Amino acid sequence: MINPSTLAGMMELLPEDQIVFEKFKNSIEKTFVNNMFLPIDTPAIEKLDVLLSKGGGETSKQVYRIDNSKKDQGLRFDLTVPLAKYVSLYNQDLNFPFRRYQIGKVYRGERNQKGRYKEFYQCDIDIIGKDNLSLYNDAEVIKCMYDALKKMEIPEFQFQINNRKILSGFLKSLEISDGESVLRNIDKLDKIGLDGVKEELSKIGIDSSSIDKIVDFIKIDGSNQEIISSLEDFGISDDLFNQGLDEIKFVLEVLKTYKIDEDNIKINLSITRGLDYYTGTVVETFLVDYKYIGSICSGGRYENLAENFSKSKYPGVGLSIGLTRLYYLLQELSLVADRKLINGVLVIPMDGFESYAIALVEKLRKDNVRSMAYLEKAKLKKKFNFADKLSVKYAIIVGEDEIKTQEFSLRDMLTGEQEKLSYEKILEKLI
Amino acid sequence: MINPSTLAGMMELLPEDQIVFEKFKNSIEKTFVNNMFLPIDTPAIEKLDVLLSKGGGETSKQVYRIDNSKKDQGLRFDLTVPLAKYVSLYNQDLNFPFRRYQIGKVYRGERNQKGRYKEFYQCDIDIIGKDNLSLYNDAEVIKCMYDALKKMEIPEFQFQINNRKILSGFLKSLEISDGESVLRNIDKLDKIGLDGVKEELSKIGIDSSSIDKIVDFIKIDGSNQEIISSLEDFGISDDLFNQGLDEIKFVLEVLKTYKIDEDNIKINLSITRGLDYYTGTVVETFLVDYKYIGSICSGGRYENLAENFSKSKYPGVGLSIGLTRLYYLLQELSLVADRKLINGVLVIPMDGFESYAIALVEKLRKDNVRSMAYLEKAKLKKKFNFADKLSVKYAIIVGEDEIKTQEFSLRDMLTGEQEKLSYEKILEKLI
Repeated sequence: MINPSTLAGMMELLPEDQIVFEKFKNSIEKTFVNNMFLPIDTPAIEKLDVLLSKGGGETSKQVYRIDNSKKDQGLRFDLTVPLAKYVSLYNQDLNFPFRRYQIGKVYRGERNQKGRYKEFYQCDIDIIGKDNLSLYNDAEVIKCMYDALKKMEIPEFQFQINNRKILSGFLKSLEISDGESVLRNIDKLDKIGLDGVKEELSKIGIDSSSIDKIVDFIKIDGSNQEIISSLEDFGISDDLFNQGLDEIKFVLEVLKTYKIDEDNIKINLSITRGLDYYTGTVVETFLVDYKYIGSICSGGRYENLAENFSKSKYPGVGLSIGLTRLYYLLQELSLVADRKLINGVLVIPMDGFESYAIALVEKLRKDNVRSMAYLEKAKLKKKFNFADKLSVKYAIIVGEDEIKTQEFSLRDMLTGEQEKLSYEKILEKLI
Repeated sequence: MINPSTLAGMMELLPEDQIVFEKFKNSIEKTFVNNMFLPIDTPAIEKLDVLLSKGGGETSKQVYRIDNSKKDQGLRFDLTVPLAKYVSLYNQDLNFPFRRYQIGKVYRGERNQKGRYKEFYQCDIDIIGKDNLSLYNDAEVIKCMYDALKKMEIPEFQFQINNRKILSGFLKSLEISDGESVLRNIDKLDKIGLDGVKEELSKIGIDSSSIDKIVDFIKIDGSNQEIISSLEDFGISDDLFNQGLDEIKFVLEVLKTYKIDEDNIKINLSITRGLDYYTGTVVETFLVDYKYIGSICSGGRYENLAENFSKSKYPGVGLSIGLTRLYYLLQELSLVADRKLINGVLVIPMDGFESYAIALVEKLRKDNVRSMAYLEKAKLKKKFNFADKLSVKYAIIVGEDEIKTQEFSLRDMLTGEQEKLSYEKILEKLI
């Protein structure tokens, strides 16, 4: 006899919780499809040299390696590297700008930690151009994720956007040469606080007058229009700075055309996304009342998706939801429990009326009502107990009376109320 | 620079093919949900002792092992072992009979072979009882798969069913002791032919008179009713035989109540499903015009799902579609090409009318029309070229005239026909 157990760090839900997870996943996927992103589905196993194409570092330690004779395979740790491979491999057959979505599991052999998963879903959208990609697309991916998060009916959220060119240009105007290191430290603001950032900047040799200017800069706040005015008033003549400013203004303008509520999008000059990878628009997304849980949807614009695979240039912009972690957090915050109810019907036959129950279920399913009949030999109490545990909205009892009158007892499983209705009336209630 | 490549034996489709694959997958999932099967999602990585709980053999050689320090993890090779683990692990929290579906990738390190995949989707439904499970459920899983295959709109298919008790009982009546070996050889009928089966039976020591009787038996054909009559006329008094006969009659009766077309289900006494695992109903499913590609949906009734994990008895019945292989075969038979068309709209702005295009797309998406605007700087010809390659049903052109008149040119991308219509008229056409 073997002890049944699941590996630590793997999310494995009971069916009633999985139903909620699937609702979220479906909301996201439906939105991606509606926004005309195209699906791809790359294998979970890739060649190690493809997976590690960006070079070593933290990630390479976390890659699950396959123990075959060649030791040259591993499990994907994100969906971006597979996308880079995919685009460079099939570029002749793709239609640029290539809008792709992928929802799939990725794997990271992290050490065990509450709320961190070794297998988790990423829900990615990216738009990839060949040589060029218009700035409209930066707004397009935000708009798509806006629709997805709305459809998920999660608590109030806010996209916080920035453009790395603004900060980089500003740092150039301060004659700071190693802008990247400064950006990486600013990125830690939420974790280490303002004093922490100052300390780190001092450590990498930024003088205190510049540090004060940087801190003043990233603290600029107000409405989006006020922040833009402040930036314009700075009178910085650096080209990169002004390009970044123009870009963020353009993206906000397009999002207005897309009718995104102004409350849902805010410039935050301290958002940098640690990675050098990003070159323009950068985005993080926060639940307004639960900002401390961190960003739930992040990404941005990059110059070149596939630089390790191809000489061609593929600029792109993308955003990603880490669904497994988001689900975990929403569930910890007790924000999902009311979604477990199944919008469907359990048909309960009295003894000997099983065939009638089956015929009724057949009709209901044809009319797109999620349904089943309880067909085990059991007392009525046990049958209702099954209905309760199934968390189904309605139960219908089928017995002699029901067959005679062709009216069925429809029981609301939440309120316990029961009424006799014709099939047509029941259908009206259910759809 | 690293050469971008995908491992051999992994299905990786272009977006237009992936769209078709997703249509199939969605049809299956929607049907499982509509039939009130509950979702579960177990990790792809499991402990090796869980994966190999059934003991060694072919499967254990094919398991992808994870190369971590403990060497105790591997990738799942089916969804049944994870289900057995799941049921025995969470049995206290489950609602029996437990109807679960799982659609997910499984992994087998087979040698490279055309049409065989190392990573492939299985779409499984199972109904698991605790101690008991009524025979209704054998019909229930067939009915669910019937709905799924119908919804997929694949070519005409036929479930071929049998009951292992019929054959086992018949062999007992012939006083053959090693019935299992005989069944395993009968299972090879499609591969080695009738003469092959005879030879194999002779090799395992069955006398020629018995072999003749066995061959006559599995050759019994006719309508379902004729086959049942023939079996009844045999006058075999063996209990197991008669129990099997009663069971198959009952299952066919329930399927009639479920209004399954008689053409779609047929008794085939030579179906045994090689595995000893199955104990009653066994099912294989064939495309009537392409029988040679083999079963596309198989499974049956088993006595005890979790015998390696638990002392409790969990009888169950389940069926599985190997979707990756099925997709591959349908595509090889050129039966999927017409499904690549995207039911949606590409909005093409004339230069300077991008904002109008965005506003239109926003409206279309709100009205659940899959749509996007083409927003790159490009000549009109390039924009239409994008539409062609996207395989989208319609394109709408937006320019000065359209804004003035509020009538849009809707172009049918298949016929090339174009007409000017109001937004409302367009919507009518599209939904």
